[in-house]
Amino acid sequence: MDKNCEPIARLIGCFMSLPGVGYKTAQRYAYSVLKLDKTDCSNFAKAIVDVKDKVKFCKICGNFTENDVCDICKNRQSDIICVVKEPKDIIALEKVKNTKWVYHVLQGCISPLEGKGPDDIRIKELLDRINNGNVKEVILATNPDVEGEATAIYISRLLKPLGIKTTRLAQGISMGSDLEYADEVTLTKAIESRTEI
Amino acid sequence: MDKNCEPIARLIGCFMSLPGVGYKTAQRYAYSVLKLDKTDCSNFAKAIVDVKDKVKFCKICGNFTENDVCDICKNRQSDIICVVKEPKDIIALEKVKNTKWVYHVLQGCISPLEGKGPDDIRIKELLDRINNGNVKEVILATNPDVEGEATAIYISRLLKPLGIKTTRLAQGISMGSDLEYADEVTLTKAIESRTEI
Repeated sequence: MDKNCEPIARLIGCFMSLPGVGYKTAQRYAYSVLKLDKTDCSNFAKAIVDVKDKVKFCKICGNFTENDVCDICKNRQSDIICVVKEPKDIIALEKVKNTKWVYHVLQGCISPLEGKGPDDIRIKELLDRINNGNVKEVILATNPDVEGEATAIYISRLLKPLGIKTTRLAQGISMGSDLEYADEVTLTKAIESRTEI
Repeated sequence: MDKNCEPIARLIGCFMSLPGVGYKTAQRYAYSVLKLDKTDCSNFAKAIVDVKDKVKFCKICGNFTENDVCDICKNRQSDIICVVKEPKDIIALEKVKNTKWVYHVLQGCISPLEGKGPDDIRIKELLDRINNGNVKEVILATNPDVEGEATAIYISRLLKPLGIKTTRLAQGISMGSDLEYADEVTLTKAIESRTEI
């Protein structure tokens, strides 16, 4: 079936394990690797090995880091914890100017369909942080989908008895979007949470 | 600027060297590599190194191969040579059923804009093959673009004095396409080369 020679076919197989990459794209990538010079090639290979060897989870928040504690936890003191699903959500939220919070990565969301319950994500570690430290507010920044909402509601119910302010990212229409194409749920949320100007 | 830790940022940079991959896609790939298990990761890295170390050009046709001579040249005897720009064109042409030809890879096309003349691509090697062997027909299967056409015309003029049948892939409308959206040049070619049914 595969007319490519073995090393190329093997590399195509590897590229196909990346998200959204099919055979044609993987083949295109493999041929472009063949055009790289030898140093770039070994650097690429080294980068793949290094990312697996060197990147660990931050002991405190669960973010990716090379050290025991990530740069954010090391350099930022805050009594606000922003709870996210995955490390990549931190990258997105760090685009906000003057971020004054620290993070807590759940490493997933409650999802009965995937067989993931509250004990399978890092909720216990969050409660430990809250019990040990001086936390004033918890921002629940899970995705606005079914799993994210369920997880946010679950955590907010756990935190209520502790008397900690629990907030959720505002929902509404996105900047630059078009009302015409906004869905019903988003518009309902936007109307409900309308603000005075 | 980059909020990712060093090994991840480095891997993102590597992925960005692939064609059509921007920062966001590269980051998505890098995070998915982090989710691979250790064996898959080292296999991936090994595949990248191997492809550069093990893949050579076939001594006869210039196709990619692990050995001195590629599988096609080794297993197929033919007096028809199909001339293509790059090894990946062979993969495409091998989809044709009952391929009875062998290949010759030019490793590029004549392109004054890129400073590539007839001496920079493997035309001399093609002439050597024709002079040494029993070649009846040369199929010029370069791309139907300016560089490909120019290269095909150049080679056909070299071959004419040698008395070798020189053919070009037929041009016309693609299967499944829509006349409405066919461009002028394609339609003109399709009319010119119309066939009796």
